[in-house]
Amino acid sequence: MSLFTKLHIAISPQFTINNLQTTKRTTSIPIYNSKIQSKHIYVSHPLVLFKSTMQGHSPRSLRSSIKSSLIDPDGGVIVDLVVPESERASRILEAEPLPKVKLTQIDLEWVHVISEGWASPLRGFMREDEYLQSLHFNCIKIKDGSLVNMSLPIVLAIGDDVKDQIGSSSNVGLLGPNGDLVGILRSIEIFKHNKEERIARTWGTTAPGLPYVDVVITNAGNWLLGGDLEVINPIKYNDGLDHYRLSPKQLRQEFDRRQADAVFAFQLRNPVHNGHALLMNDTRKRLLDMGYKNPILLLHPLGGFTKADDVPLDVRMEQHSKVLEDGVLDPETTIVSIFPSPMHYAGPTEVQWHAKARINAGANFYIVGRDPAGMGHPTEKRDLYDPDHGKKVLSMAPGLEKLNILPFKVAAYDTVAKKMAFFDPSRAKDFLFISGTKMRTYARTGENPPDGFMCPGGWKVLVNYYESLQAEEASPQQAALSV
Amino acid sequence: MSLFTKLHIAISPQFTINNLQTTKRTTSIPIYNSKIQSKHIYVSHPLVLFKSTMQGHSPRSLRSSIKSSLIDPDGGVIVDLVVPESERASRILEAEPLPKVKLTQIDLEWVHVISEGWASPLRGFMREDEYLQSLHFNCIKIKDGSLVNMSLPIVLAIGDDVKDQIGSSSNVGLLGPNGDLVGILRSIEIFKHNKEERIARTWGTTAPGLPYVDVVITNAGNWLLGGDLEVINPIKYNDGLDHYRLSPKQLRQEFDRRQADAVFAFQLRNPVHNGHALLMNDTRKRLLDMGYKNPILLLHPLGGFTKADDVPLDVRMEQHSKVLEDGVLDPETTIVSIFPSPMHYAGPTEVQWHAKARINAGANFYIVGRDPAGMGHPTEKRDLYDPDHGKKVLSMAPGLEKLNILPFKVAAYDTVAKKMAFFDPSRAKDFLFISGTKMRTYARTGENPPDGFMCPGGWKVLVNYYESLQAEEASPQQAALSV
Repeated sequence: MSLFTKLHIAISPQFTINNLQTTKRTTSIPIYNSKIQSKHIYVSHPLVLFKSTMQGHSPRSLRSSIKSSLIDPDGGVIVDLVVPESERASRILEAEPLPKVKLTQIDLEWVHVISEGWASPLRGFMREDEYLQSLHFNCIKIKDGSLVNMSLPIVLAIGDDVKDQIGSSSNVGLLGPNGDLVGILRSIEIFKHNKEERIARTWGTTAPGLPYVDVVITNAGNWLLGGDLEVINPIKYNDGLDHYRLSPKQLRQEFDRRQADAVFAFQLRNPVHNGHALLMNDTRKRLLDMGYKNPILLLHPLGGFTKADDVPLDVRMEQHSKVLEDGVLDPETTIVSIFPSPMHYAGPTEVQWHAKARINAGANFYIVGRDPAGMGHPTEKRDLYDPDHGKKVLSMAPGLEKLNILPFKVAAYDTVAKKMAFFDPSRAKDFLFISGTKMRTYARTGENPPDGFMCPGGWKVLVNYYESLQAEEASPQQAALSV
Repeated sequence: MSLFTKLHIAISPQFTINNLQTTKRTTSIPIYNSKIQSKHIYVSHPLVLFKSTMQGHSPRSLRSSIKSSLIDPDGGVIVDLVVPESERASRILEAEPLPKVKLTQIDLEWVHVISEGWASPLRGFMREDEYLQSLHFNCIKIKDGSLVNMSLPIVLAIGDDVKDQIGSSSNVGLLGPNGDLVGILRSIEIFKHNKEERIARTWGTTAPGLPYVDVVITNAGNWLLGGDLEVINPIKYNDGLDHYRLSPKQLRQEFDRRQADAVFAFQLRNPVHNGHALLMNDTRKRLLDMGYKNPILLLHPLGGFTKADDVPLDVRMEQHSKVLEDGVLDPETTIVSIFPSPMHYAGPTEVQWHAKARINAGANFYIVGRDPAGMGHPTEKRDLYDPDHGKKVLSMAPGLEKLNILPFKVAAYDTVAKKMAFFDPSRAKDFLFISGTKMRTYARTGENPPDGFMCPGGWKVLVNYYESLQAEEASPQQAALSV
């Protein structure tokens, strides 16, 4: 009954593919691919393996006729819930008499996510049937009977007072945190928000101290409001970073414009060090070796809610710019864009969301590392999740079969070669692991990390950020303002 | 995006069918069926609806050629892991030098469950890939790429000491609680037992006081041992009830022998009152109305671990016998058998297991009530689960599409008609709800329930049981023995 196997193929160990079931165990690299047993794939050449997961498109055929879609969005079309400009005035009029629900900043981030189709085929905040499927199965059955992945409940919580105000209205207006009309939620359904169950099933713990739970759920209302969303205007933040916020539709257009024949997405919420860069460059090299002519990297930092001690988005974006300026990543083959989702820190459950959203954005390869979306247990001295579960769960997840999952070996600082390199267990003592926490400590204390850990331009951005933070802390007035 | 709809069909409100996705809402009864939009089913006649979910068998064709399988077992064949008699001696010899793992009574119940194929296609205690899929998706992908439902982790916990004893052996012997060799586990895999995560994802809470958690998980080892199971001899309990313990294979043979053209399963862990009987008889009547000629009821009490205040199995079996003797249920069209699984009290997660196991036993209709496998929250004054979630989750569950789910309206005591009847909300005040707890209180205090609540023979069994319990409690020596 074991659903895993290892196939012997001539491909780098950091490459494995999604979802396999057989009972045989041979040697070499794990391959997870449900199609491995299909008639298309008894060969061991990696190119053929990868071709088989590309919905019938070979790199060759893509080269000759690139139009869109290296990978279809979930549900077949990208959801786009922004009202056409010509209809906005009438929608604003229509919303006038409706009961209103005021959104928090994080609710608004979800409105952004839903409205641009990152969560396709979801067309609004979840109703109970979608919520239950998400919570219990991490996937939702759509009209054609197939499953799409949907691992995080995307829900809007309201309190008793708001529920009472809504009464029997079937539509409501949504107001942003500043009171402006953001959109309309139609054919609404109100159902119970069992927070304990939601937390337990999403995070696999109910321990106090989970960042998203503390900020978003604990004090939220006892009801969830589902319905079909319409957004009056595209969501903008006016923080100088909106030009980085490409929608799935815009990203797909950009991949077409660049004539990409493979897109590999890298999700991150930390500064890019040379270990990340090594891995991304190595991935591109492997894809070229496999016959792709123009693999494009989607460097895709998460832009929504993150926990207080993570590096803020604006600093990260500046750091990423330096990494491209310093030539660590090649601007010609890299697109830097912001993924607007809030962060749950829900490990194996959340990594599915991160991967699924990138399908909708047109990426057909997804890089996954150690302990994706993980964090320390909030009350115990251990990782909250088994660091290997993320990539395992990702490779098994219903609805993600069409995505090529690329787990990678961990990179660390090689003290002999004095650079970031893939960890070699045969000389483990030569390697230094520099965690996100350790990196932040270096930057905060002004200590330099080992040479070759990060490009100097990128490192300077971090040092400046932590210096400014200390300056703020030293000035009580400033600190009060920054809360 | 709502995945539910209501169709107007001429069928009793307590009949609805599995898994539907459309966005339209009309009137009348909810129908949950993924096939409703297929070319087979645009008609509204209930017979046709039901036929369509029977894998192409119409009642008519079944009548003419009944052989087996109203419904295929998960994975296509029923797993049977009992070693043929001719090979038992050699297996016992083989097991002699193997490291040994001692099973608890509840581990042994799981060995029983797995060995007879209730959990088909599972062939042993779960390895990590199966465990993770069960925990995250409540279903497992099998070789042909399809999903089978598998909502409860079926796992064997071991401690550090046992793990050390096993060392690098790939097979282990399993010993029963009495030290006898029960079977062999082959090609084993040992992986971490994160109890907190298992509990949170299975029960949707980590509150102390969950019966299965307290008895089975809290003090269990920190490792899980998966592998392929072989059982030397069929599991027997020698408690005078083994003749009730029909395996899935035996049940299917019995359905064939009786020439059943529909089998409807009723899972229970409580005495049968006249409300249950009303429902079961009503279900049979409806199936007859729909054109089935010989629907057979599988009255299928759970026989494994139950919590301390539930009525014990032997008393329940005696009570069920009386219900048939008193003619409340018809012995000609009823099979009473024991379902050997332990009880988790895990609500919507567990009800999937209860239904899935009955597919393997040959039932193609499954009756589901209010709050199946539910209980009170262990630390809060509320139901642990939303009482409607069980049937909703069941109707959506991947891998259960082929089973006809029959939710029923709640039955209660009609104080006007002086009998159990389907609850009529238009005259709610005439109805008296008698919970399991209340029923047990009546029996314990010697108070009679209202006339018509339960057949006199069945009621007497309960009263005798509670009287014997009180006699035991009054005698300290007996009480000590009964622990």
